[in-house]
Amino acid sequence: MPVVSALHGLIGPQLAQVDTLFARELLSDLPAVNTLVGHVSKFRGKMLRPMLLLTSGLAAGDEATGLRDAHVVLATVVEMVHMATLVHDDILDGAEVRRRGATINHLRGNEAAVLLGDYLISHAFHLCSSLESQEASRLIGHTTNVVCEGELMQNAHRRHWKLDEKTYYQIIYRKTAALTESCCRLGAMFSTLQSDRIAALTTYGRNLGLAFQIIDDILDICGQQKTVGKSLGTDIEKGKLTLPMIHFLRHAAPPHRQLLIDLLEAPDHERIEHVRQLVGPSDSIAYARQAAEHLVDQAIDALDVLPASEARDVLTEMARYVTVREK
Amino acid sequence: MPVVSALHGLIGPQLAQVDTLFARELLSDLPAVNTLVGHVSKFRGKMLRPMLLLTSGLAAGDEATGLRDAHVVLATVVEMVHMATLVHDDILDGAEVRRRGATINHLRGNEAAVLLGDYLISHAFHLCSSLESQEASRLIGHTTNVVCEGELMQNAHRRHWKLDEKTYYQIIYRKTAALTESCCRLGAMFSTLQSDRIAALTTYGRNLGLAFQIIDDILDICGQQKTVGKSLGTDIEKGKLTLPMIHFLRHAAPPHRQLLIDLLEAPDHERIEHVRQLVGPSDSIAYARQAAEHLVDQAIDALDVLPASEARDVLTEMARYVTVREK
Repeated sequence: MPVVSALHGLIGPQLAQVDTLFARELLSDLPAVNTLVGHVSKFRGKMLRPMLLLTSGLAAGDEATGLRDAHVVLATVVEMVHMATLVHDDILDGAEVRRRGATINHLRGNEAAVLLGDYLISHAFHLCSSLESQEASRLIGHTTNVVCEGELMQNAHRRHWKLDEKTYYQIIYRKTAALTESCCRLGAMFSTLQSDRIAALTTYGRNLGLAFQIIDDILDICGQQKTVGKSLGTDIEKGKLTLPMIHFLRHAAPPHRQLLIDLLEAPDHERIEHVRQLVGPSDSIAYARQAAEHLVDQAIDALDVLPASEARDVLTEMARYVTVREK
Repeated sequence: MPVVSALHGLIGPQLAQVDTLFARELLSDLPAVNTLVGHVSKFRGKMLRPMLLLTSGLAAGDEATGLRDAHVVLATVVEMVHMATLVHDDILDGAEVRRRGATINHLRGNEAAVLLGDYLISHAFHLCSSLESQEASRLIGHTTNVVCEGELMQNAHRRHWKLDEKTYYQIIYRKTAALTESCCRLGAMFSTLQSDRIAALTTYGRNLGLAFQIIDDILDICGQQKTVGKSLGTDIEKGKLTLPMIHFLRHAAPPHRQLLIDLLEAPDHERIEHVRQLVGPSDSIAYARQAAEHLVDQAIDALDVLPASEARDVLTEMARYVTVREK
């Protein structure tokens, strides 16, 4: 994938610094804490959010601007925030615990998973407060408020089979796109004072995040567990309606719509597979994919106001990659 | 109780402002979020931490100094941090869910409780970042790091029947006293530049917090559920050794020691009551109470360097109250 090597050339050293700072910030003088924190490394993923922040920082500046230490600090902060949400997402209600693989709550119990997520979020804020100004702390604090609202909203709308698209977009903006938006905004803010550039990258980050979440929701239905590398069908299991299912419940043949609701009402392993087979080959997947592609186009269009640069080209490629990825 | 009316006279208006700011900061434009946040009000307790912060602010200054807006902001921040730990403390492992009363996880499931705690902690940091300088954000971030370590450490030492006093004190310093210490320190820092006064209040807050936790641990064994107003015996249920039990396991007659371990190994409702009856009337309670009283004396002694004031007298009374309280 060429975008990876381009990224490596552009921000390789800073990504390595993020890794180092991540580990250093989380290191405790208590062995019991370090043992548990060690489990987090298994969750480390694509580093999408640090990449967005750092590349936005480059793309917002002029040719000679480069990245500052603050960019590395903030790239580490957003990765910690993201990791905290992943760890807490895996907390399950009692009955569901046995269904899952080697998540932290499975390995160590719900309590340990709660505490580990708290440890990550606390260190994210602590690291952020090491910067000179409060500006980033304010934006990160606001962003995590919004992310929590998104998760609370999603939780409150579980098993609402009449959920509409508007509410779905409100949820995914909050739970996913608010953070990618802030990544790009922060990257830009620490590189330039030009508000049109900051606004452009903010728009880019928001639309990329929305598209990313829609594709994630499609993969939960259509993906191959082996390729995606995480449990699939979890939205179905938890009664969380996503764009393909919302579309299906409105546009599929009435007997299919009723069948989907019946399956969603009591989702055991077999019924989850049945839902995936029912919705996976339908028009509703194509519909959701088109929505994601449209958002990617809007993200890329927003970059027009930026000066031409390799960083800008990489942001374009990253956005395109969002809709073609299979994991 | 005279200390309450004295507190009311000293910091009544500021405590009311804390209440208002607490509600305003948590208000969302999403009804689903507000519904869930409404449950938090049921947890609101003694406001000990805001009281410590505000009274320390008064006691650290000179007669005419008074309190600043920042004191009210920080008093609200520490109450939110404390509430977040309460909500997350109630997350239980699957098997235990059915045993408990109307905690949030019981009412709404573990996921909602996780998210609500996250919402509180996020808003605490967000509110803290509204202050002009990063100083408080740094101390709050550091403190929540330490609190998380304490909880992780306690979790890691569950069912370690050989836990020693030193480790016990490390745990309770981190999970409880680090926050009361920071309350008093922050209150002082925003009232004076005199480092001996700041240090004195830091010592006071730390020792008061340690004593408070020891009394809490005693009440878990000896308290009346009706008076204390929360589930008791939870330390026993969760295999968390506290000072009375550590002492008992070292000093009681050998058959009693073995009996305690046998009961702790498989703590159902009946065995929890048996533990309470076994340890409750023993010397180990008096031992733990003496330790708490000694810490209270140290807390009060530390206040000597402060100028005489009503606020200093109230801090003295608050510390004395810690060991006589029955809830």
